[in-house]
Amino acid sequence: MSTDDTTERSTDAESECGASDAANAADGATDAASSSKCGASKSKADGGVASSAETEASTDETASKCGASGSSSSSGCGASKTSATDEKVGSTVDDFEADPGRLVAVGLGPGQPEGMTQRARASLLEADHIVGYTTYVELLPEEVTESAEELYDTPMCGEVSRTEEAIDRALAGNDVAIIGSGDPNVYALAGLALEILESKGATASMVDFEVVPGVPAAQSCGARLGAPLVNDTVSISLSDHLTPMPTIESRLHAVAGEGFTIAIYNPWSRKRRENFEKCCEILLEHRAPDTPVGIVHGAGRDDERVEIVELRELEELGETDLIDMTTTLLVGNEETYVWDDRMVTPRGYESKYDY
Amino acid sequence: MSTDDTTERSTDAESECGASDAANAADGATDAASSSKCGASKSKADGGVASSAETEASTDETASKCGASGSSSSSGCGASKTSATDEKVGSTVDDFEADPGRLVAVGLGPGQPEGMTQRARASLLEADHIVGYTTYVELLPEEVTESAEELYDTPMCGEVSRTEEAIDRALAGNDVAIIGSGDPNVYALAGLALEILESKGATASMVDFEVVPGVPAAQSCGARLGAPLVNDTVSISLSDHLTPMPTIESRLHAVAGEGFTIAIYNPWSRKRRENFEKCCEILLEHRAPDTPVGIVHGAGRDDERVEIVELRELEELGETDLIDMTTTLLVGNEETYVWDDRMVTPRGYESKYDY
Repeated sequence: MSTDDTTERSTDAESECGASDAANAADGATDAASSSKCGASKSKADGGVASSAETEASTDETASKCGASGSSSSSGCGASKTSATDEKVGSTVDDFEADPGRLVAVGLGPGQPEGMTQRARASLLEADHIVGYTTYVELLPEEVTESAEELYDTPMCGEVSRTEEAIDRALAGNDVAIIGSGDPNVYALAGLALEILESKGATASMVDFEVVPGVPAAQSCGARLGAPLVNDTVSISLSDHLTPMPTIESRLHAVAGEGFTIAIYNPWSRKRRENFEKCCEILLEHRAPDTPVGIVHGAGRDDERVEIVELRELEELGETDLIDMTTTLLVGNEETYVWDDRMVTPRGYESKYDY
Repeated sequence: MSTDDTTERSTDAESECGASDAANAADGATDAASSSKCGASKSKADGGVASSAETEASTDETASKCGASGSSSSSGCGASKTSATDEKVGSTVDDFEADPGRLVAVGLGPGQPEGMTQRARASLLEADHIVGYTTYVELLPEEVTESAEELYDTPMCGEVSRTEEAIDRALAGNDVAIIGSGDPNVYALAGLALEILESKGATASMVDFEVVPGVPAAQSCGARLGAPLVNDTVSISLSDHLTPMPTIESRLHAVAGEGFTIAIYNPWSRKRRENFEKCCEILLEHRAPDTPVGIVHGAGRDDERVEIVELRELEELGETDLIDMTTTLLVGNEETYVWDDRMVTPRGYESKYDY
């Protein structure tokens, strides 16, 4: 649901992961649904000239503004080549001569095009290049993939190199949109983009860096479950890829005792069974065994599944395909109840109003 | 940003608040931008027949399906009349003879139409009746207000009676959308709608109750500030209208010590100065005085203002017009820093990758 999902996949997959230079990425894209429209390969055939920052994004498919390939082969790809092995960031702002283009981080929301805001759609239609994890690029509506001059999607090769590729393309003079599901601020790429811009000696202003928010997984899943999150809520990721597990455990103890509803991202992967088990134990230390837990697997995707279980049942479900990296868990508080197949967390109106 | 905002306004305003029966509501709407299109008054002139649940929502302005007015005068309005004084809920499911219509709770997101998802737009275009707080109804695009047969908006008369009005109209056979800014699951009406449906002896299934998620205020404001929320985050409302202040204080202590970024909703109203002051004190007990705090006032509205201050400066700003019920505060954690006028909360990539 979030690009942390991507982080995990890339982590889990780094060994399987081929080099992520533009050529291989284009190959990767050739296997993707979006391949036929993959400007990355197309532009290589065309060659072409770098667009200036002032140039409006063109939706004319015959236009050729392939500065990215130019810049990529000179620096972007070099950087990506490096990152394919150890995720080092290569090129700096001094490696680029063109006037920078714009960089926008766009949240796609739940996954399907109708879950996207109209502002997100407009931002994607304006972009010269769209960069993202293959799964999300494949979810883009045709009007968007057709209007883009280049699609750069990598299957499992790490969000750091992919984000740097997006930044290099923007510094090379292209208007670039980097995409992720959910919201760019929820375990996602908005922060990484700013960190990498800084590391390159660039600034956010230089590329008019903008974040277009999207509906986060917690709210997409909450909507499917009814009204589980209408009071104070916390979101916690069980991925210890970037946050140490003792910190995650301490946070779970702190909030489980305080009546927050809890949205749990990245609940389970084969490498982190014990994080999930520990999480279930901590929740049971603070909450009743019959506390409702909403489980949404693959929200907005073909394999979507929605179930409401009791907290006591959660741990054993970790080994089923209901709970994986595409699942979000919504743990009710002590007042949450299930009614008519929906989760309801009361806000306290009943204590104020007579109904 | 959320309908808690509305709760507050209605609470603050109950004394000023006129009766909220349909007639007065229509009058109220007459003062609103949406007045000329207010079906509520129009339908009273037309009279009309209740639509059946099977009837597709029509966008034909000449169509007259005013079951709501019928039902409203028989029960909905009665209930609303009561609720104008003490927010009691009146009619039950047995008071309605028609086949129920559908009820959808739609999150509008940040406020402006482009922040709405395409699914939200479609849901509003399908609805016979749209019910909401006047401020939000006024933010609807013209295509939506023109396609609706009735707009029922109340200025300051309480979300309980407004939500019941929406439910009564659905039980009377109309397809109804009840709207709020942000997301229906974030301090908003999804839970209230389910609670009132239950209290009426109805069920959610009976009206095909559906929640259409929107971009919450925390994410809209996070996007404006850069990347303040990319790690574990909590949202807390400082309104003690429905949650006692000792509970709010305990939650603030619990999360402020655990490195969560904190989104604070409903930070200040003239009735709750001391809640804001207490919140600032608690945050300073756990976090450095120079911790960045993002302040977004009136996100997506004409009076939007965005500022980044230090935690030590926050309390004194409570008395300025920068912080009111339309403001959301995003409090950074110990690693959050300000760079190029943006708030960045690192996710820990720098410890994993060399850049």
